[in-house]
Amino acid sequence: MASFDLAQHPHRRFNPLTGDWLLVSPHRALRPWQGQQEAPDRSQRPAYDPTCYLCPGNTRANGSVNPQYDGTFVFDNDFAALTPDAPTGTVELGSLLRAEAESGVGRVICFSPRHDLTLPEMSTADIRRVVDVWADEFQTLGSRPDINYVQIFENKGQVMGCSNPHPHGQIWAQRTVPGDPAKETVQQEAYFQQHGRTLLTDYLEIELREQKRVVLENEHFVVLVPFWAAWPFETLVVPRRAVQDITQLTEAERDSFADAIRRLTIRYDNLFQTSFPYSAGLHQRPTDGQGHESWHLHMHFFPPLLRSATVRKFMVGYELLANPQRDITPEYAAERLRDLPEVHYKQTMA
Amino acid sequence: MASFDLAQHPHRRFNPLTGDWLLVSPHRALRPWQGQQEAPDRSQRPAYDPTCYLCPGNTRANGSVNPQYDGTFVFDNDFAALTPDAPTGTVELGSLLRAEAESGVGRVICFSPRHDLTLPEMSTADIRRVVDVWADEFQTLGSRPDINYVQIFENKGQVMGCSNPHPHGQIWAQRTVPGDPAKETVQQEAYFQQHGRTLLTDYLEIELREQKRVVLENEHFVVLVPFWAAWPFETLVVPRRAVQDITQLTEAERDSFADAIRRLTIRYDNLFQTSFPYSAGLHQRPTDGQGHESWHLHMHFFPPLLRSATVRKFMVGYELLANPQRDITPEYAAERLRDLPEVHYKQTMA
Ligand SMILES: O=P(O)(O)O[C@H]1O[C@H](CO)[C@@H](O)[C@H](O)[C@H]1O
Ligand SMILES: O=P(O)(O)O[C@H]1O[C@H](CO)[C@@H](O)[C@H](O)[C@H]1O
Repeated sequence: MASFDLAQHPHRRFNPLTGDWLLVSPHRALRPWQGQQEAPDRSQRPAYDPTCYLCPGNTRANGSVNPQYDGTFVFDNDFAALTPDAPTGTVELGSLLRAEAESGVGRVICFSPRHDLTLPEMSTADIRRVVDVWADEFQTLGSRPDINYVQIFENKGQVMGCSNPHPHGQIWAQRTVPGDPAKETVQQEAYFQQHGRTLLTDYLEIELREQKRVVLENEHFVVLVPFWAAWPFETLVVPRRAVQDITQLTEAERDSFADAIRRLTIRYDNLFQTSFPYSAGLHQRPTDGQGHESWHLHMHFFPPLLRSATVRKFMVGYELLANPQRDITPEYAAERLRDLPEVHYKQTMA
Repeated sequence: MASFDLAQHPHRRFNPLTGDWLLVSPHRALRPWQGQQEAPDRSQRPAYDPTCYLCPGNTRANGSVNPQYDGTFVFDNDFAALTPDAPTGTVELGSLLRAEAESGVGRVICFSPRHDLTLPEMSTADIRRVVDVWADEFQTLGSRPDINYVQIFENKGQVMGCSNPHPHGQIWAQRTVPGDPAKETVQQEAYFQQHGRTLLTDYLEIELREQKRVVLENEHFVVLVPFWAAWPFETLVVPRRAVQDITQLTEAERDSFADAIRRLTIRYDNLFQTSFPYSAGLHQRPTDGQGHESWHLHMHFFPPLLRSATVRKFMVGYELLANPQRDITPEYAAERLRDLPEVHYKQTMA
């Protein structure tokens, strides 16, 4: 019998950041696909769209008028899932029906006044302005006594539920620490107690030695497909230095962060020559006033496309009921991304 | 200030089956939607499709020919994510890179020879045959020493990654217990230790008293929108009697199960007058040879549609990075489903 080979044989991988397992079925990558095809985003958008509620100078649903901003623009979400002034209280019926009031803030961040751009089409300097806004927002929201966690994220592309193509992200900040960051807190804390270094410091060291899953590096950041990636081309963007949150990054590190995001998202667009959809977001320390020295800031990219601009991975029956599952291996995905050019395909098509 | 009201104010709910929390934002249901629209399934399918690899008498990708079956038909998945003869082994690099070989079996179950039907369009007697196949398969697979968990599920609709509209489900059975059933095992065990009854026995008692979240009942089964439902119209199908797995259901209980599935899925189709997409599946005891008296068989339905046949809920940025989130309340969803007729809309359109 052949000996066990991660590149060929079904196996499970452990995610040390969450404590969960993932099922990998490498042999299944060649399965034919007759199901749903996504519409690739080939739309040509104007630099300014008079009907877009995020463009400069336009009026939003609640009557507010956007300023004539020329860098980034941040405002309170007009349809926020969380509100600061929500009534407090709990409902308990035995130990089985339990609810408690939640409060928080929803913010929207326009990355650029240009309706026709996305992060990979922006300059490093302009992405750096987005990084600075993330840091400022984390600082302001995180110092409020009623906010104990700040989730910064972006949904890109219709397939990821994004309802407006104008380049923008969101922040949901709230009183309690949500499930995933709470898990990562427990796991990182346990590792730090045992080893005296952050989990991601030691993990980076292994990956930089092996190189198999590294996509790109710069002075202060590494982008890799984690060993436990669930989405086909999922990546992790990690600063080499263990910082707990984005406000602790130096000027040079912020530039490196912007550079890493730009080079990664250009590779994503180049992979299937389409505006590559994803959900992405930062994970950082809870803002509950504790030290959290075990926390190591990082950014996750969860992109759904699997084989082409139109064939995606579905996290459905088995995945919703039992366990996340992937077909192509993380090593293969990293190799594909590594081999791509860092000039955006639209620029070479001129 | 208004007092805390589950129907109006943002809050978190606890899921006692998994131990996770859910964010509920009831006030957000009126948010306008300008994003992706799904294509509703209005296809008229023929009773037999010569190009369908699941129809009776047709040839599959691997050259096998389907029998001229006239009830259900079960076979090994030609592109199974799990294989029984996979090499065993582990890979470990410190505590951070950990993988282990996994083995198992993938099965496909055709619910009917009719290419143009779905569960809600089949008779109760025909659905009962599907229930019997599930029980037989659980029995056979579950008694194998190399199988410790049997996941039975159905992906329905293109939006749920289903690649063939012929009515069918799947089974992935494997050596280890996957994440979600493992969590449910821990939670149910802890509850049983403390209370001497299964968690779902006590939960059913509360719901039957309150009635607010009950969708339908019959002699042996209850269908409800659980207090902690994450998907807009998510439901739980629970036998009144605590059984650990489907093989323990009596003849009468199996009939009741088929009746509950039929009546629920008809209501689903009637909700937006479309073939309602979902992923659904059974959760039952691990087949690891232990008693698992704390386990209470149940079936989850996870349907994505939110407001119409074309507007779905996206579990994306915040949900992937932080926590599941819903807009409409479970109580509202139950009321909508409860108020629907149990005659399929296609039959009243004749
Ligand atoms: O096996 P199928 O129907 O081809 O595939 C479908 O169900 C599987 C199990 O939930 C998923 O892993 C796939 O992503 C989905 O497309
Ligand atoms: O706030 P948006 O962009 O309207 O909404 C989008 O992102 C949210 C946060 O991930 C999700 O809850 C919604 O389902 C999705 O459509």
